[in-house]
Amino acid sequence: MPATSMEELVSLCKRRGFIFQGSEIYGGLQGFYDYGPLGVELKNNIKAAWWRTNVYERDDMEGLDASIIMHRMVLRHSGHEATFSDPMVDNKKNGKRYRLDHLVKDQKADVQAKVAELMGADPENFAALVAALNANSAQASQALKDAGVRDPFSGEVGDWTEPRPFNMMFKTTIGPVADDDSYGYLRPETAQGIFTNFKNVVDSTSRRLPFGIAQIGKAFRNEITPRNFIFRVRELEQMEIEFFCTPGTDEEWHEHWLEQRLKWWEAQGVPRSKIEILDVPKEDLAHYSKRTYDLMYDYPTLGHEEIEGIANRTDFDLGSHTKAQGELGIQARVDENLDSVAKLTIPHPETNKPVVPFVIEPSAGVDRAMLAVLSEAFTKETLENGSERIVLKLRPHLAPIKVAVIPLARNREEITSVARAIKAELQGLGLGRVLYEDSGNIGKAYRRHDEVGTPFCVTVDFDTVGKGEDPNLTDTVTVRDRDTLGQERVKISELSGWIRERLR
Amino acid sequence: MPATSMEELVSLCKRRGFIFQGSEIYGGLQGFYDYGPLGVELKNNIKAAWWRTNVYERDDMEGLDASIIMHRMVLRHSGHEATFSDPMVDNKKNGKRYRLDHLVKDQKADVQAKVAELMGADPENFAALVAALNANSAQASQALKDAGVRDPFSGEVGDWTEPRPFNMMFKTTIGPVADDDSYGYLRPETAQGIFTNFKNVVDSTSRRLPFGIAQIGKAFRNEITPRNFIFRVRELEQMEIEFFCTPGTDEEWHEHWLEQRLKWWEAQGVPRSKIEILDVPKEDLAHYSKRTYDLMYDYPTLGHEEIEGIANRTDFDLGSHTKAQGELGIQARVDENLDSVAKLTIPHPETNKPVVPFVIEPSAGVDRAMLAVLSEAFTKETLENGSERIVLKLRPHLAPIKVAVIPLARNREEITSVARAIKAELQGLGLGRVLYEDSGNIGKAYRRHDEVGTPFCVTVDFDTVGKGEDPNLTDTVTVRDRDTLGQERVKISELSGWIRERLR
Repeated sequence: MPATSMEELVSLCKRRGFIFQGSEIYGGLQGFYDYGPLGVELKNNIKAAWWRTNVYERDDMEGLDASIIMHRMVLRHSGHEATFSDPMVDNKKNGKRYRLDHLVKDQKADVQAKVAELMGADPENFAALVAALNANSAQASQALKDAGVRDPFSGEVGDWTEPRPFNMMFKTTIGPVADDDSYGYLRPETAQGIFTNFKNVVDSTSRRLPFGIAQIGKAFRNEITPRNFIFRVRELEQMEIEFFCTPGTDEEWHEHWLEQRLKWWEAQGVPRSKIEILDVPKEDLAHYSKRTYDLMYDYPTLGHEEIEGIANRTDFDLGSHTKAQGELGIQARVDENLDSVAKLTIPHPETNKPVVPFVIEPSAGVDRAMLAVLSEAFTKETLENGSERIVLKLRPHLAPIKVAVIPLARNREEITSVARAIKAELQGLGLGRVLYEDSGNIGKAYRRHDEVGTPFCVTVDFDTVGKGEDPNLTDTVTVRDRDTLGQERVKISELSGWIRERLR
Repeated sequence: MPATSMEELVSLCKRRGFIFQGSEIYGGLQGFYDYGPLGVELKNNIKAAWWRTNVYERDDMEGLDASIIMHRMVLRHSGHEATFSDPMVDNKKNGKRYRLDHLVKDQKADVQAKVAELMGADPENFAALVAALNANSAQASQALKDAGVRDPFSGEVGDWTEPRPFNMMFKTTIGPVADDDSYGYLRPETAQGIFTNFKNVVDSTSRRLPFGIAQIGKAFRNEITPRNFIFRVRELEQMEIEFFCTPGTDEEWHEHWLEQRLKWWEAQGVPRSKIEILDVPKEDLAHYSKRTYDLMYDYPTLGHEEIEGIANRTDFDLGSHTKAQGELGIQARVDENLDSVAKLTIPHPETNKPVVPFVIEPSAGVDRAMLAVLSEAFTKETLENGSERIVLKLRPHLAPIKVAVIPLARNREEITSVARAIKAELQGLGLGRVLYEDSGNIGKAYRRHDEVGTPFCVTVDFDTVGKGEDPNLTDTVTVRDRDTLGQERVKISELSGWIRERLR
């Protein structure tokens, strides 16, 4: 039932106004996408659902919205200046640059196997192969050449340089003087805005452990090779929680969040059966991570890829950003920080002594969520009459348009005025967007609203206004159900209640 | 009744968690702000109110959410590369750089008058003075020095350079290779994302004239001297509409939008009486603007400053971004565009011939809106007992917290369980954030919720659970009204209806 290929999703998204290539009229900008009239609604609905579950419905969460451009010291002490990089290689023949792991992944199986053989690595373990390539640059360059690794652009075997790290942060000059100190970074993750505001939030809300801070916002990563539609982009949106807890309770909270997040995905129509929980092996973890679960959703065409990471980050982040590190009994290995002016501690709930809390971080991508939600909702059905329809079976709370109100004749004032009044009334329910739809004939309108996932179409016809064949139908409308295709005649006076009941 | 100074707003915002300085723990980053737990809710509520009025409640509007980083060609053909600049001057003594108009404005009256005299400009007309300074750079440099213009940093008379234009766009390298072609800009306004997607939106929605596209999102301006709290910042958020109409109907639509926008501000608690409508004089308009209304809100301390601009931009924008400009009868003076691949026309509603529509642009700032809303809501009252209270009389739909549910004893399970159940029920109404509030005693909680504008506090006490003095009060709670301070006993079973009625 879900989408079977990325292509059919991409095509629907463009055709119906969900997602367009960024700066398209100038040839497009790789890794940047614009969300169209329906995309912005779906995206906002996903974000609202996340905020509702994680902020509103809990009693231990605060929200935040920090700036995108941050002080370079934030990204220095977070570790991003030194380590937020991917190894890349250049093809000396044409100057093209590739992310090493992507380049190797794109090769045919026999070429990949050959690279592994030359590196003395297990050909079945891709992560280990990449690690081996990174560990020995000179040997790697030779192996890529000897194995005949081809340049995806030219199609020819490349003359490959040694792998070098490439920092993925976007940098920009701040203020009128471009000197060595006057730059900042576009945040590569929203998380750092949470850590740097930890004290501000505690001071203004009187929170005590355990509690979390949630944030939704843009993040930027200068990917060497953006790819796979909105899956790997340079401008992305994140939904991140940093949940602060007493050291020792962290493992329990980690399990709590794994469970909560799976439940949330399920409620958005992304079932557990399609998500593989990867308990990231110790050797693949960053040094500060005690344990990380990667939720791997089975995307069409791509296969299992990360849709969310849930990490136990210990006291590394607050420990890295705090002043007076030496006095605080920090457990993680942190670099010296002589720049921070704040002590990032909170009273221990039992001893009342200042403690640097541990952090559990559930971090999900909005764009990847949208892709998964669309993929699960995408349905091709053969109808009784043999024709095929595409329908997006989105959960109602996610549907970009909740109800389309369709006047059967667009130029008959007695019909359009009733349709407009119904639209205004349903809009007033506060359930989301209700569309006054007079752009085509009724059959086309139904097809369009199936494809964009509108749960109900309400049609105002001649019977509604007492000018049809059946006087009993006066002051009633036809309501068509997206999923069952059933049509029901509902009294206008009862319509709001009818819709509200089904859309809550 | 509203705030009388910026300082009292800044202080409240920091203390109660509305707004913090960006990157504060590293000394702060000038012109960047983070929105705290209450700030993010207020901001989201303002944005939702704007979206509801301008997208949902109209039948002629589509939404959009375009990327922040844009192709340099977009900002070249929009005119921003050439003209989005402010004149600046340097003080040769210490290398400090200032925006010319801000520097002059900050001088004492007699110094300002002297500059005007030396430039032969009217001292009463500040805009004319700045224009004169820009028109003759050499004379300007001399006048600044001779008039004794002081450096705000050193306090001493500066050795001023000639004014030079400084482009305010943030630039960044895109992709792994830093060459002449591999850069883009952070958008300086959301508008350009709308123009470049005009055709995509028309094609995917079948819209005909007149209709608009609305967008909310971040924009970035590398201000030389950011100032006045969140009024002039480097990272801002905009709410922009581009309303496309047939040439000839533009003046009527311009008036329509002026009226609509004033109505909207009124509904947010910003009355017309506090907004001056500036009909921008012809000589101050950009060459493509036929007419512009600036809405000037009377900010505390700052005085009348722009909160929204409503411009008739003719066919300049689409005309600048379209290909085949010569065939389209564009009325505005546009530069040649050989880069665009799209023809930005739409059938004329009467003749059906392709036409480049005119554009009316109501463009408001989210941060400035927040400042105005906070300012109007800010109230200092002397109570009957002589004590003073600060209360934010926010419209309920804007209040960051709709209801605070307060258990009178935080450690008595029979009370806290009822309070939590009430919180969950009220949260389920979907009206916004409901807070379970057990951070202090009841008096403190009331004061805190007055200051952050929570319309209602619901208190669960011993009477509620049948352990108080009056058995008639079992299963009732106290509801306290923020504005009247009145307290009413309401049955728990009727509470949802009671609250819903008053918060809609």
